[in-house]
Amino acid sequence: MRLDFSVAVHSLLYLDQHRDRRIASRELAQSLDLNSVMIRNILSLLHKNGYVEGSVGKNGGYRLIKTLQQCNIGELYDLTIPPTISYARFITGNNAELEQDDATAIAGNIKETLTDLFTLADEDYRKFYHQFTLADLKNDIEHHGYFIDRIKHN
Amino acid sequence: MRLDFSVAVHSLLYLDQHRDRRIASRELAQSLDLNSVMIRNILSLLHKNGYVEGSVGKNGGYRLIKTLQQCNIGELYDLTIPPTISYARFITGNNAELEQDDATAIAGNIKETLTDLFTLADEDYRKFYHQFTLADLKNDIEHHGYFIDRIKHN
Repeated sequence: MRLDFSVAVHSLLYLDQHRDRRIASRELAQSLDLNSVMIRNILSLLHKNGYVEGSVGKNGGYRLIKTLQQCNIGELYDLTIPPTISYARFITGNNAELEQDDATAIAGNIKETLTDLFTLADEDYRKFYHQFTLADLKNDIEHHGYFIDRIKHN
Repeated sequence: MRLDFSVAVHSLLYLDQHRDRRIASRELAQSLDLNSVMIRNILSLLHKNGYVEGSVGKNGGYRLIKTLQQCNIGELYDLTIPPTISYARFITGNNAELEQDDATAIAGNIKETLTDLFTLADEDYRKFYHQFTLADLKNDIEHHGYFIDRIKHN
């Protein structure tokens, strides 16, 4: 789900603001206005990948163990949104036309071509996010327009 | 719908291969294995934007009036996939936290920041497609690997 990325970003920023204590998934769920199951899935992913320490369950809670500078937005995007979600299932074409005696059959080959095109576009898309860290994102939250300025003056 | 882009591309390639006659939306629907309504909606869009000439209805049909070189893939992407579809609805955050006396409230501001980030990423993403025309796409269909070669050796 594409929401996963936003949830991960939002959760890490929340944990950053409360570094003095462990945060329960229920508290995060309340702040993000989402259900706890979704939050726990994301936190489990962030835990597995070394962003947070802590544990689930009663008296559980998480603490951020990276600085915001160490949290690359592209890495979070890659973690939460696998490439296949980005371009899969949006391709036309069946193999019926191949049965016709058509040497340049489109329908039979367009699938591979569009898959390549979408894959390359997706790789390019991800590079965009890799330019930034959560420190940049916090900067934009506090001084809105930071992202726009940085890209437009690039 | 993201499928619209693939349908537009596929339809134009089909029309290019049959420039000698007008193609009915029913024939296109059969070739693309999709329903005629969807095809007609896309063809209507392509007609409005000067890609094809022709008419709907009985004895209707469409003919491509551009060369494949004149059909920019990025323009087709912009036409069929409005920016809002790309990044909308994937943002967390409500305004509840604002009510707390928290000067650096995340939830209240993250929406604008993520919207900017996604919008900028989307603009960048579209630039990728603008590098190519349908002539390139046909090239890849006939000599698969063309897109990969062109990007990797860029």
